[in-house]
Amino acid sequence: MSEIRWDPLKGVWVIVDRERGRRLQEFLLEQPAPRVEFCPFCYGNESRTPPEIDAVRPERQPPDTPGWQVRVIPNRHPVLAIEGDLDPRGHGLYDRVNGVGAHEIVIENPDHDRDLADFAPQELVAVLHTWQRRLNDLRRDTRFRAICLFRNQGPLAGADIPHPHSQIIALPLIPPLMAAELHNCRDHFSRKERCLLCDLLRQELHTETGIVHDDGHFVALVPYASGRPFELRLVPRRHEHDFVRVGEDELLALAEVLRNVLARLRQALRTPSYRLYLRTAPPQHTRFGRPNYWTSLAHDYHWYLEIHPCLARGTGIEQATGVPVNLVAPEDAAAFLRGENPAQKR
Amino acid sequence: MSEIRWDPLKGVWVIVDRERGRRLQEFLLEQPAPRVEFCPFCYGNESRTPPEIDAVRPERQPPDTPGWQVRVIPNRHPVLAIEGDLDPRGHGLYDRVNGVGAHEIVIENPDHDRDLADFAPQELVAVLHTWQRRLNDLRRDTRFRAICLFRNQGPLAGADIPHPHSQIIALPLIPPLMAAELHNCRDHFSRKERCLLCDLLRQELHTETGIVHDDGHFVALVPYASGRPFELRLVPRRHEHDFVRVGEDELLALAEVLRNVLARLRQALRTPSYRLYLRTAPPQHTRFGRPNYWTSLAHDYHWYLEIHPCLARGTGIEQATGVPVNLVAPEDAAAFLRGENPAQKR
Repeated sequence: MSEIRWDPLKGVWVIVDRERGRRLQEFLLEQPAPRVEFCPFCYGNESRTPPEIDAVRPERQPPDTPGWQVRVIPNRHPVLAIEGDLDPRGHGLYDRVNGVGAHEIVIENPDHDRDLADFAPQELVAVLHTWQRRLNDLRRDTRFRAICLFRNQGPLAGADIPHPHSQIIALPLIPPLMAAELHNCRDHFSRKERCLLCDLLRQELHTETGIVHDDGHFVALVPYASGRPFELRLVPRRHEHDFVRVGEDELLALAEVLRNVLARLRQALRTPSYRLYLRTAPPQHTRFGRPNYWTSLAHDYHWYLEIHPCLARGTGIEQATGVPVNLVAPEDAAAFLRGENPAQKR
Repeated sequence: MSEIRWDPLKGVWVIVDRERGRRLQEFLLEQPAPRVEFCPFCYGNESRTPPEIDAVRPERQPPDTPGWQVRVIPNRHPVLAIEGDLDPRGHGLYDRVNGVGAHEIVIENPDHDRDLADFAPQELVAVLHTWQRRLNDLRRDTRFRAICLFRNQGPLAGADIPHPHSQIIALPLIPPLMAAELHNCRDHFSRKERCLLCDLLRQELHTETGIVHDDGHFVALVPYASGRPFELRLVPRRHEHDFVRVGEDELLALAEVLRNVLARLRQALRTPSYRLYLRTAPPQHTRFGRPNYWTSLAHDYHWYLEIHPCLARGTGIEQATGVPVNLVAPEDAAAFLRGENPAQKR
């Protein structure tokens, strides 16, 4: 019997198939091999990318040369352009804004083949620092309402270039997924003066069934109402709405838990493709120099990381209705990632 | 320069890439050939499916035998089960309901290889009638809040069985895509006492750039703020919230416009995979025998059909943020489907 579960953070019902006995093989999709071709992200090819915006490299080394540890460049084919003022206009019942935004690539390591799970902790911290610097820089641009960071890993996630990299997109609007979480956190806090994510974390820790890893700083868990097989959240125990404000110690702990969780996924799901998202509060800077509706919601938020492995193909029901169908019960996925054999357990 | 456009029906911003000169080839994905194997939907295999729920067949012919024109069966692997009472419960901050629902298959024609665009008008009307009968039957079940009809055509849409068929899923909840449209139609009507979809249709007819086909009963158009390449809406000019109430003449006109539009898509996009959705108001029957919030919204709605061709792969931005990126400007897609060569036009 399947179950329908409500996620109060995202504000969606998800269908969870609780049928037992499906084999993991049914969820693993064949992954096309990456095409072996020229990699613009490798050492020596710096002149083949747009000029770098930021880099972690030895002092006095010139930009756009080898020797960097992390390198940030504009996306060569950005969907939004960095130039121009916002020019929002009505168009009858519709609206339009010119496509102003930023679309950047964070090249996370010189090593073309390095899996994020195999980064040394300090290498990963250098990436996390770079994420913070770019978010901090982009949020000063008052044209941008939201800055979203994501990472497509593997061919099924649409990563055309296998070299480790993440992407940052700055938007002149609050995107729907962020809007829903901000609203739901605000609703909860305004009624209870408690953070929704803190409360959800407390419940998951009490129930235990969804917990994959807990090091005292971060909890990795498969949420009770997750809409995708093996969906994971990495939630900091300390309440903080803004990833940019996270300090050195916590970043190091985050690097460790990320390595741990990615290694578990790789082991359990045979090097799956996945998507990783940073969820953090929107910037406080606004176009008219004063707080607005969205900035007022920021402090009720709680930043976290989300990982979506790309596994079983959809049924078409999610596209038709917006209701995800999760063919692996979250508690089973968590047990599997903890290394337990769920078939033996019950 | 790209543009960001607001869709007041779905309540989303979409990024529209207005760069000209991309060739169609860039949007056509390779389609895997369907696996040739046993087809449970063909004549003679009726005993290999669950017993039929409904069929269009000569009188006095026994069920589950050949000779039918349209046949409805339960999905063999339903994600929701038809048996059992609803048993909604809280689970801390989460909620759960047992997975009660219906998941049916409408086998639309005995001919395994018949493309929907090649159905004779009366064959298509028989399918549309069957849709109406099944919606009408399922909506009497007071456990169901929404009945959604969709059609996955071709391998990229996830249609495992190529034999023409559509699917109906009845849910004990209002799914998010329906909720958003109901809210937006209600908001518009409560302020203006005009239907949002009627108003949007009027604007599209005035602008003309998005119109693909107009026969006086139905308008096929690529909406100004559509989030996918070649996304189409088939909107009835006559205001009606409920597809089940549509009469014979209008169904025949719908069959004609559907054939016309599907033939245009096949011609323009080389037999693309696509998803087709019926959008109609939710049922009025409720669990406690009285109107509820959702039933009160139904009359402000306006039914229509939506078609999403499965073309270019996503950029990952939509998954990360919920903001779709449409790489073909809707006005260019409409011109192309009208048979104009947009490169020549401007």
